[in-house]
Amino acid sequence: MELGARSQGEAAPSVAYPDELRALVEGHLRELRFSSEAGTSGLEEAMRYSLLAGGKRIRPVLALATARAIDFPLDAALPLACALELIHTYSLIHDDLPAMDDDELRRGRPTCHVAFGEDVAILAGDGLYAEAFRHVLSQPGGSAPCTLRAMAELAAATGVGGMVGGQYLDVSGAAATDAAGLRHLHELKTGRLIAASVDCVLLMAGRPEHDRMGYRRFAGELGVLFQIVDDILDVTGTDAALGKPQGSDQRHGKRTYVSEFGLPRARELAAESYAGAGQALQRAAPAGAPELQQITDFIYTRTS
Amino acid sequence: MELGARSQGEAAPSVAYPDELRALVEGHLRELRFSSEAGTSGLEEAMRYSLLAGGKRIRPVLALATARAIDFPLDAALPLACALELIHTYSLIHDDLPAMDDDELRRGRPTCHVAFGEDVAILAGDGLYAEAFRHVLSQPGGSAPCTLRAMAELAAATGVGGMVGGQYLDVSGAAATDAAGLRHLHELKTGRLIAASVDCVLLMAGRPEHDRMGYRRFAGELGVLFQIVDDILDVTGTDAALGKPQGSDQRHGKRTYVSEFGLPRARELAAESYAGAGQALQRAAPAGAPELQQITDFIYTRTS
Repeated sequence: MELGARSQGEAAPSVAYPDELRALVEGHLRELRFSSEAGTSGLEEAMRYSLLAGGKRIRPVLALATARAIDFPLDAALPLACALELIHTYSLIHDDLPAMDDDELRRGRPTCHVAFGEDVAILAGDGLYAEAFRHVLSQPGGSAPCTLRAMAELAAATGVGGMVGGQYLDVSGAAATDAAGLRHLHELKTGRLIAASVDCVLLMAGRPEHDRMGYRRFAGELGVLFQIVDDILDVTGTDAALGKPQGSDQRHGKRTYVSEFGLPRARELAAESYAGAGQALQRAAPAGAPELQQITDFIYTRTS
Repeated sequence: MELGARSQGEAAPSVAYPDELRALVEGHLRELRFSSEAGTSGLEEAMRYSLLAGGKRIRPVLALATARAIDFPLDAALPLACALELIHTYSLIHDDLPAMDDDELRRGRPTCHVAFGEDVAILAGDGLYAEAFRHVLSQPGGSAPCTLRAMAELAAATGVGGMVGGQYLDVSGAAATDAAGLRHLHELKTGRLIAASVDCVLLMAGRPEHDRMGYRRFAGELGVLFQIVDDILDVTGTDAALGKPQGSDQRHGKRTYVSEFGLPRARELAAESYAGAGQALQRAAPAGAPELQQITDFIYTRTS
């Protein structure tokens, strides 16, 4: 298996991806409507503009792959899976705002605030988060107690102890300046939501704590892997593949695995993390979880 | 009963307020902590700065007064009540942002983005919303199915079909330009959350639909009353009482009940709405609901 953040000019390795699950997600996302109130269709347009901009849908596909690994019905996990993508999209919209990262391109298109104005972009993000919760809470996929626990975890993973707290560490520079501080920042900013994509499905399915532990270890390592590769790609990727100008972390003065360790060591760390995730998955799902393994392979080898 | 938006110089009428319930709310809010992760205490500080800026806590007090009216334990309703205030605070923070209303004063103090920067203010709002859901979902006050229904309604009331949709109508000018359009804007922007402050308690308590209908009618009228008085106060209130510069609606070119109907007619509409709310409450709670009546009186006569 080749590391995705390869030398320039090398052909992208072809890695299988759970395209069937991705198609399920894509279809469900396209059908989602948020506005039935007069006058709010412009807000819905901005929300769908960002939501339907493409991408691999890693978080919802991860959720559905988890459901399949534990024999939980896909259609019961689908609203939760799609809620994860709504939340991810909201975080990107707010992250791109002028007062935050001030990015004008995302997935090759103008960012939400460039296309719709800053006020509408703020509200589009706010709206996506609310609609994510509404979507799952109004059609719970598990028993009511299990759905409550899953949604409590989703709220925690996206609150101050998770995604929003990580974004704060990122913009404020309040994270510790050592390697542990960098790891902690990313654990909150991206890791918690990736981990929740696995754990919330187990919670919704009512799996006992000892089952969840193994999957949590896998998901935790997957989050780390995702971030290291992300940092490598920011340096080695092309504008076209990334859908945004390459090198943006550096321009924003962000601390990354590459700035911290240098490119060669970052690649080693990615390889170690990839191996660790595979081993954790093997232990969590001894009978095999081919789609979760595919996602792990994809995250390691992706080029965008 | 005097209308709060009185002629200048007139003494404020003394109206009883459910101060015992307010003290419960205030105590609970002060105890809330959001940050246990290293480095995120600055975010918590911004969140608590805005959350603990005072105010009458109308939404949570309304929730507790509803709980008392239907004999639902106050401590079971308290997390939901406080979540309503977290959400209200989040909406104020985002509303005040430079890209939105660009307000620099709120309750007599610098707004969150003036005090902490725009990036932190965006995240403080995002964080408050997530923590509101986490708070209730992790300590549900009713049975699991009832809590799910209550939280689904809270998400709906604050999403595109509610608060965020109303904020969009406000900033985009997309509401219809007649009186019905103005009413619809406020119904979404402020009315839905005020109504949810009553209805979510009934949902959490598992009250049947026919009980909820009467209370919904009361809460709907209360939302209208709140907004008319708000619009009147923006014209007749003093800077000191309002905690922000008087006349800000006019400066922002906002359509209000006063701009639409003129001050005398807006006062008549407030009086009609006040009478309507009282009648609806009488029908919803024939045995009496003194604290809900007090809140209604207060909303009608308030001076800030």
